[in-house]
Amino acid sequence: MPAQSPKKTPVALIGLGGVGIAIMRQLLAPPLASKFRLVMVANSKQYLYHAQPSAADFDVAKVTDDLKRGGEPVDLPAMVGALSTHPEGPAILIDSTASDAIPALYPTILQMNIHVVTPNKKGFSGDLTLAKNIIDASYPTPGRGSLVYGESTVGAGLPILSTLRDLLETGDEIKKIEGVFSGTLSYIFNEFSKVEGGDVAFSEVVKIAKEKGYTEPDPRDDLSGTDVARKLTILARLCSTQTPSLPYTLLPKGYASVPTSSLVPDVLASCASKEEYLERLAEGDEAMSKLREEARREGKVVRYVGVIDAETGKVEAKLEKYAFDHPFATALQGSDNIVSFHTKRYSPRPLIIQGAGAGADVTAMGVTSDCLKVHERLRLKAWASAGF
Amino acid sequence: MPAQSPKKTPVALIGLGGVGIAIMRQLLAPPLASKFRLVMVANSKQYLYHAQPSAADFDVAKVTDDLKRGGEPVDLPAMVGALSTHPEGPAILIDSTASDAIPALYPTILQMNIHVVTPNKKGFSGDLTLAKNIIDASYPTPGRGSLVYGESTVGAGLPILSTLRDLLETGDEIKKIEGVFSGTLSYIFNEFSKVEGGDVAFSEVVKIAKEKGYTEPDPRDDLSGTDVARKLTILARLCSTQTPSLPYTLLPKGYASVPTSSLVPDVLASCASKEEYLERLAEGDEAMSKLREEARREGKVVRYVGVIDAETGKVEAKLEKYAFDHPFATALQGSDNIVSFHTKRYSPRPLIIQGAGAGADVTAMGVTSDCLKVHERLRLKAWASAGF
Repeated sequence: MPAQSPKKTPVALIGLGGVGIAIMRQLLAPPLASKFRLVMVANSKQYLYHAQPSAADFDVAKVTDDLKRGGEPVDLPAMVGALSTHPEGPAILIDSTASDAIPALYPTILQMNIHVVTPNKKGFSGDLTLAKNIIDASYPTPGRGSLVYGESTVGAGLPILSTLRDLLETGDEIKKIEGVFSGTLSYIFNEFSKVEGGDVAFSEVVKIAKEKGYTEPDPRDDLSGTDVARKLTILARLCSTQTPSLPYTLLPKGYASVPTSSLVPDVLASCASKEEYLERLAEGDEAMSKLREEARREGKVVRYVGVIDAETGKVEAKLEKYAFDHPFATALQGSDNIVSFHTKRYSPRPLIIQGAGAGADVTAMGVTSDCLKVHERLRLKAWASAGF
Repeated sequence: MPAQSPKKTPVALIGLGGVGIAIMRQLLAPPLASKFRLVMVANSKQYLYHAQPSAADFDVAKVTDDLKRGGEPVDLPAMVGALSTHPEGPAILIDSTASDAIPALYPTILQMNIHVVTPNKKGFSGDLTLAKNIIDASYPTPGRGSLVYGESTVGAGLPILSTLRDLLETGDEIKKIEGVFSGTLSYIFNEFSKVEGGDVAFSEVVKIAKEKGYTEPDPRDDLSGTDVARKLTILARLCSTQTPSLPYTLLPKGYASVPTSSLVPDVLASCASKEEYLERLAEGDEAMSKLREEARREGKVVRYVGVIDAETGKVEAKLEKYAFDHPFATALQGSDNIVSFHTKRYSPRPLIIQGAGAGADVTAMGVTSDCLKVHERLRLKAWASAGF
């Protein structure tokens, strides 16, 4: 009976924005440091690879300088090639970028016996072909051995995808999934449309959200609803395995196939610069105020939600009104996400998961907890091969 | 490159109450039927074993009759022995009883290369020695190969334990776990102490809860708070791996070491029969009404909660008052559970999970989803052994 291997799983981290740095910090500290060995980091320009790193080789505080001083120019084939032959492999590649180019390579990377973990929604929420190729290249398809996990693509560290998977795989039937999936839009509507009082202009709230760092540099990227449509695509495609009304082919172009209400009025969508857009933001205020008043007269608040209705087969990102005593009105605060799963078993009341759905630390947690899933499975393989 | 093995994992199910029957129904239907082969069922008197069952051998509709007619008298050593040598093993044993005797055997069963999945809290929430022996006998302790899962011991099918494990294993710090952990006490207090109106007597609510089948046959078993104390023990022991203020030795006698407020007044605790207790139930009404009035004057409701405070190292099951706009007051309905995790990352607002925390189908789902975890790990071992 051999003792369990203490071998660490090698990890490469591409993307060193806020989330990337938080991932790096988590991987290098206890308790994760005993299970993972960071061997490669990269930003959009350079990468650093140390097959057998010393403690000083990867340091959160000086990684940007180290890359500038000692990094090689980014070269994905060379980087992936190095990883695939790492002596302690198979390795995990973490894609913490917002790139389209790296997800396009996931099928190739997975076929090279490298596992992929990512908070990047692009590979799963765009064209059907790429999403399907990624799944086909990953376990448990016969003849393929690599895993791909993207828990943090929806709800950051909240257990949204794993819960949906558990519901489906144990034979529950999804009736409806409804939620506030965007931290930015959660904050904006929690401030704009309250149960009590609040007559602030929509443009004012957007400006405060931007100042607090809750929006993308161009707030139109949040207000377009595209991020919500991407998350809905990921959830709907997961449902397809057990839900005939939501076939995998339902959203051929992914998020672009999801009917999505934009909060950017037509007159502002065409602003050439974000500066012009921000200056003219108030032009949309009247319509939003009217909507808020209308809701208030019905005893409701306004929220921007994503809905997957398995009974009608409809997937939508839209503004919706909720009664003052609905959890989306009362229980939601700050920039929290909330997701309710209405199923055959969770009926008449849904299963609800709520909490921060954005932010570097919680998104990084979704990523590192996926890394743990890969690690446990790899160690089990080693454990089985050792003849236990 | 061999195709992945389609081998089914053999399962034995002990305990055929409401939850046991629901487990049986889930295991025998798609999508689980393609992954599991039920080979043994047992109630408290008889068991049936078919190493290679035909489709008709296990039938939910007539299992009670089949056991009566064709079952062998229950004999745990013989049953476990048969399982441990099943040709398609290793097998899973599901303990869906409320027995103390079977959990006492978990360490032995695990050492016989049988995996254990259970909604039975007894093994994990009692004496420290047994709980520790169970963990020591399970993976990933070096030299031991079997898995033990008890997701459904807390919150039934809600992902409470798996979420706590993810938080801990990725290096988050637990500050406080607070929740309504008993479906029965959730229902009773949601009806007894409402934000608006409600002057019903406590004894009336308990009687209605009993009539609706929400309580144990003797409601004192719910009102004693023991069930909540057991769940807190399981959560606190899980925290101990990463939380110095909550050492594994904190609750040497498990639930019996948790300070627990009983809702059964002293004068009624001594009632010889549940009939006498139910007759005299109204004797406790005055104290409960007074508490409700006191809370109302403060703009609060009363709830029976479990609290694990990692800052003070205190674990308690008790009555607590919550402001009208607190999620425990507004968002909670029916017999739902709600659990909030206050952590370093989920701060200032907690991660919240809410939904049915009792009931046959959702508890069974927690069990079958644990079975899937075992199945996936076993198939990965097979996949590794096949030389992939």
